[in-house]
Amino acid sequence: MTNEQKALFIIFGGTGDLAQRKLYPSLFNLYKQGFLKDHFAVIGTARRPWNNERYQEIVRNSISGMEVTAKQANEFSSHFYYQSHNVNDTQHYETLRKLADELDQKYTLEGNRVFYLAMSPQFFSIICQHVKTQGLVTDNGYNRVVIEKPFGHDLQSACELNEEINQYFPEKDVYRIDHYLGKEMIQSIPALRFSNNLFNALWNYRYIDNIQITLSEALGVEERAGYYEDAGALRDMVQNHILQTVALLTMNAPMTYTDEDIRKEKISALKALRVYDAAGVKHNFVRGQYGPGNGQVAYRDENQVDPESTTETFVAGRIFVDNMNMANVPIYLRTGKRLTKKETRIDVVFKNAPYNIFGDGQLNRNILSFKVEPNPGMELRLNGKKVDYEEYSIETMKLHHEHGAKTQSKMPVGYEKLLYDVLKGDSSSFSHWDEVYYSWRFVDSVRNAWDNETLAADAFPNYECGSMGPQASKDLLAEDGNNWYLSPDED
Amino acid sequence: MTNEQKALFIIFGGTGDLAQRKLYPSLFNLYKQGFLKDHFAVIGTARRPWNNERYQEIVRNSISGMEVTAKQANEFSSHFYYQSHNVNDTQHYETLRKLADELDQKYTLEGNRVFYLAMSPQFFSIICQHVKTQGLVTDNGYNRVVIEKPFGHDLQSACELNEEINQYFPEKDVYRIDHYLGKEMIQSIPALRFSNNLFNALWNYRYIDNIQITLSEALGVEERAGYYEDAGALRDMVQNHILQTVALLTMNAPMTYTDEDIRKEKISALKALRVYDAAGVKHNFVRGQYGPGNGQVAYRDENQVDPESTTETFVAGRIFVDNMNMANVPIYLRTGKRLTKKETRIDVVFKNAPYNIFGDGQLNRNILSFKVEPNPGMELRLNGKKVDYEEYSIETMKLHHEHGAKTQSKMPVGYEKLLYDVLKGDSSSFSHWDEVYYSWRFVDSVRNAWDNETLAADAFPNYECGSMGPQASKDLLAEDGNNWYLSPDED
Repeated sequence: MTNEQKALFIIFGGTGDLAQRKLYPSLFNLYKQGFLKDHFAVIGTARRPWNNERYQEIVRNSISGMEVTAKQANEFSSHFYYQSHNVNDTQHYETLRKLADELDQKYTLEGNRVFYLAMSPQFFSIICQHVKTQGLVTDNGYNRVVIEKPFGHDLQSACELNEEINQYFPEKDVYRIDHYLGKEMIQSIPALRFSNNLFNALWNYRYIDNIQITLSEALGVEERAGYYEDAGALRDMVQNHILQTVALLTMNAPMTYTDEDIRKEKISALKALRVYDAAGVKHNFVRGQYGPGNGQVAYRDENQVDPESTTETFVAGRIFVDNMNMANVPIYLRTGKRLTKKETRIDVVFKNAPYNIFGDGQLNRNILSFKVEPNPGMELRLNGKKVDYEEYSIETMKLHHEHGAKTQSKMPVGYEKLLYDVLKGDSSSFSHWDEVYYSWRFVDSVRNAWDNETLAADAFPNYECGSMGPQASKDLLAEDGNNWYLSPDED
Repeated sequence: MTNEQKALFIIFGGTGDLAQRKLYPSLFNLYKQGFLKDHFAVIGTARRPWNNERYQEIVRNSISGMEVTAKQANEFSSHFYYQSHNVNDTQHYETLRKLADELDQKYTLEGNRVFYLAMSPQFFSIICQHVKTQGLVTDNGYNRVVIEKPFGHDLQSACELNEEINQYFPEKDVYRIDHYLGKEMIQSIPALRFSNNLFNALWNYRYIDNIQITLSEALGVEERAGYYEDAGALRDMVQNHILQTVALLTMNAPMTYTDEDIRKEKISALKALRVYDAAGVKHNFVRGQYGPGNGQVAYRDENQVDPESTTETFVAGRIFVDNMNMANVPIYLRTGKRLTKKETRIDVVFKNAPYNIFGDGQLNRNILSFKVEPNPGMELRLNGKKVDYEEYSIETMKLHHEHGAKTQSKMPVGYEKLLYDVLKGDSSSFSHWDEVYYSWRFVDSVRNAWDNETLAADAFPNYECGSMGPQASKDLLAEDGNNWYLSPDED
């Protein structure tokens, strides 16, 4: 029954952290389920002078924490080949091509190739160019390029990068990966919205009061300071994960649930993002940087971080998608490092009934929550009758759904679902260039306002490790008479 | 804090089954919680020549299965007095009055009296008359009469009974008890409907496809054949419990959640019941009688039952409430004895989204379920994304809420909540005469059509013990392209 795929993966950055932590385990999951079987091979390339044996050992190590027998590990890793490689050296692509063609024959891969760029973005363009010009693309199968974030550093660099890539690969073969889009509950958003008339009918400015998106991390900057100092939370999390989520939450219903139609609507939603001028940014965005707390050091004291760094490790914002259904519905977002706990959730807060027939006192809001992580599930907060003799009163009632342990164990962790989509040629969970374009256009407006503003000397740090960010993040919602409803600290 | 009530209960039928199984345990629960304390007394009256000691022993026995200490049992039962009584004998009311006045003094009851008619309906009128004319009602406190079902046998007898009672007690002091209205999840219907805009906004013919009410009993007729042979399921369950539930499900929002406003809307809903002619009854109602099965005997073989009885032990129907919000929404009801299991539930079935963007295949319905018994709770059936690599598909997702064990243990079981309402003078959970009137008007239309129809010799029995009733009950919904969604056999 299982649909075995035939393909050669060429992984640029095959010795890297991402490859070891995410790609090899994900490929192994696909292998265990039979989606990859006899007809696949992987070429790992990087500068390091490894050989196949060393590489296969690394691959086996990367899956050693999983449920795997020695036999499975050996068979699986036997499909992995290593090629030391300098991405700037034309000659090296020639070697790669030969190996690729050999493996294509050996495993009967029918010319299907996935070029996975798990490297620093500065090399994306040069790799695409050489892959194309050195004849690594085939005529008889597909040739898809998977590109890791970040896709550009701002709108201009993203446009340049895209133009370069497009010289060698058409948009339809470019898979810009955003692993958030592979998460089960993010994938569930369209199902909840469009297959339930209960929500479909109410998913508009008449009934939705606001939407709250929280991506909180407990960790600090860890080993990524080099990249992070320059990127900050806005580029690192908002430009991609959060705005992609916003698109799924605010897009109109696609004609059909197929990649072309979905992309059309996501693009429209991101195009409809209200872009701010400097005053708008000041009014609608909050940035923060963690100080010490909870036994942790301040961001400025982390390794490789400038002691006077003004990089934001926290962002909160109020954004709007100005389309006919969602205009003027505030979408509150926040993300940051060293917050109370690691949690990703989306809370859709509905307006109350026009009148409270039950007398004094505010009714609690109806809230539909997508609990993305750590425990994927749904929650719906309703009002119910309080069990009470004395009087008829209303209290919050929570309805839950969590996938059972068995289903959870089968749940793709993100990358494997997306890798499988690449093999199938289903681009619905990848970012189209136009989506990236409009996301950067929006993010640039915020970034530029911040860059042009002189930050007060005592502006950062402005939140403690272990808190839910600066006070200004709460004030942002309080201005509208709202609050962060279901966050770690207010839950 | 607890609001202690002062009152004398005079229970007509004080030795009966209802009093022992329901009233004394309920009064004890009120006592344990302090709503009844020093200032209450109970006079039990019936024909049997008991004395106080015997009566108090009966009271103690009736609560012996509960959490109770010997001290509590003794103190509680010491408030109980017995008076042998012939309801037709004027002289006896004189004796009752004296005892009542004595107890009023002894316990400082401030003239508050509850006359509880736990007797055969034929005595309701004569008791009310004597209570009034023999001076048992007080001037300084309230005088409320609680009337057990059945309130009449048909519209005409109900009207007559009501006129008689009203000669002695005004409508405002008449508490027609329907213990279903004391059940937590029945009481929750208005809370769910009117305090959640999610449902408030959708509670109309545009979004609700149909409503299904199931009151299924596992038991047979047991000891009640004498009454039941004459009443049948229609009078026994539909006229009161089910139509009261229908009123709560279909009424417009009351101005405020207070008894006067609620009654107004319930009356309007019951007035809006579409009354059928004979052809309408034939088309919209199904009756059944259980045959043997599951190790149980047929109804016709039960004690005290006519071997050719045509009494229905099962009813299913399709009814309509023709008001501006709910017109043409089919409300399917069914109730019967010897069904699969004891369960009471209400399933509100919403219409699907106008179009299924997820491709072929029918979407499952959004269903909001009030699980009344045995385990009180709410369930909402939604569509969610199936965890799957291969394709994006939709499957049913159930969101649950059940009160925790602690809350459940505090949950009034029905009578005690209603008894407390009587003490408080809150009539919102009792049936106003106009509600009874319109219920009987509707039920008579069904009953009359059946009575005028010659039942085929082999019409009954038509379902087996342990099934969910006759096939015609399923066919009724199948005609509309529906089915009983969440019943014991289809769940």
